[in-house]
Amino acid sequence: MNRLSKQIQFIVEIDKLKQIIRQTVLMDRSRPENSAEHSWHLALLAIVLSEYADARQLDTQRVLKMVLIHDLVEIDAGDTFCYNQDPDIAVRQKDREKEAAERIFNLLPEDQAAELKALWEEFEGAATSESRFARALDRLQPILHNYMTRGMAWRKHGIHKSQVLERNQPIEEGSGALWSFAKAIIDEAVEKGYLLP
Amino acid sequence: MNRLSKQIQFIVEIDKLKQIIRQTVLMDRSRPENSAEHSWHLALLAIVLSEYADARQLDTQRVLKMVLIHDLVEIDAGDTFCYNQDPDIAVRQKDREKEAAERIFNLLPEDQAAELKALWEEFEGAATSESRFARALDRLQPILHNYMTRGMAWRKHGIHKSQVLERNQPIEEGSGALWSFAKAIIDEAVEKGYLLP
Repeated sequence: MNRLSKQIQFIVEIDKLKQIIRQTVLMDRSRPENSAEHSWHLALLAIVLSEYADARQLDTQRVLKMVLIHDLVEIDAGDTFCYNQDPDIAVRQKDREKEAAERIFNLLPEDQAAELKALWEEFEGAATSESRFARALDRLQPILHNYMTRGMAWRKHGIHKSQVLERNQPIEEGSGALWSFAKAIIDEAVEKGYLLP
Repeated sequence: MNRLSKQIQFIVEIDKLKQIIRQTVLMDRSRPENSAEHSWHLALLAIVLSEYADARQLDTQRVLKMVLIHDLVEIDAGDTFCYNQDPDIAVRQKDREKEAAERIFNLLPEDQAAELKALWEEFEGAATSESRFARALDRLQPILHNYMTRGMAWRKHGIHKSQVLERNQPIEEGSGALWSFAKAIIDEAVEKGYLLP
C-alpha cells in the first residue's frame, strides 16, 4: 500500500473516536460528550490557556498534537470511568491501551507512526512540561462541564469532593494558576450542592 | 472581569459547537457529524497530510489553529448546506458569520480576540499557503465521508459529479496531490453509484 493510502486508512479509522462516549455531559445537559469533540475542546483550551503553564518555555504545537491524539487508543480500549476504584481494571486498561496504540498508530507510514506513538507515550508519561500541561487541561475540562451541568456526572456517581481533589491533583503539576482556579470551582460546586462534601 | 474569567467564558461558550449539525454523516452511517468533531478530524488531517501542501514552507501550527477555530462562527450563524444555489442566502450567511466572529472572539481578552479573529479572516480570505491548505482539508474530509457512507449526503440531495468537482476545486489551490486523490475518489463514487454522473 502506498504512503497516501496508509494515511487515508488512518484518517478513516479514527472517525470511530466520534462514537466513544464519555461520562461527561455537554454543558447544555443534553447528552454525553464523545471523545472526538472532547479532544477538540482540549485543543481550544490549549490555544487559550497556555500562558498559565508553569513551564517557562512551552511548545504549544506539541501540546496541541498531544491533546488531539491522546484518546485515540479508546477506539479499541474504550473509555474507563475515571473514578473507578478497582486497581485490576486500571492495569488491564493500561495493557489494552498499549495494544490499541500499536494497532492504530501503525496504520500510518512508519515515520508518522513513530512520531504519534512517541507523543502518546509522552502524554502518558507525564514527565515533560508539555505533557504535564496537556494533562492539566484534560482534567480541567471535565470539571468545567460538571460545574456547568450542575454536577450531572458527579451526582450520577455520588462523587465526593475529596475524590475530585485527588483525581485532579495533576492539574497542579502543569499549572499552579489553573489548579487554584479549579479548587475554587470545586468549592463552589460543593456549596451549590453539585458535589458531595 | 479578569483575564482568566474571560477565557473561561469563551471556553464555555464554544461548547455549543458540539450541537451544530452538519450534512455529512459519520463513516459508520449512524448519525450526522457535528462541527466540533469535524474540526477535530480536520486537525488530524493537518497533522498527517501536511507533507502534501504545495507550499514549500508551511506553518503547521497555524494550519492547526485555523481548522480548530474555522467553524466557531456557526454557533450563531449555523451551518449552511454547501450546495445551496441561492446567492442571496450566501451573502446573508457571510454577514451573519462576520457578526458571529465579532461576538464570539470578543469574549476573549483583547489580544487573543485579535489573534483568533485574524486567523479566522485568514482562513476565509484563502490568500496564504496555510489558509489554502486548511481549506483543502475542509473540502477533502467530507468527500471521504461521502465515499465511506456510500454517498449518503450526496444521494440525499441528488448531487451530481460536476457540482462536487466545482465545489471542491479549492483543494487544488492547497494541494495538487490531494486534488488528484480527490478526483480519483469522485470518479470511483460515480462508478459505484454513490454520486450522480
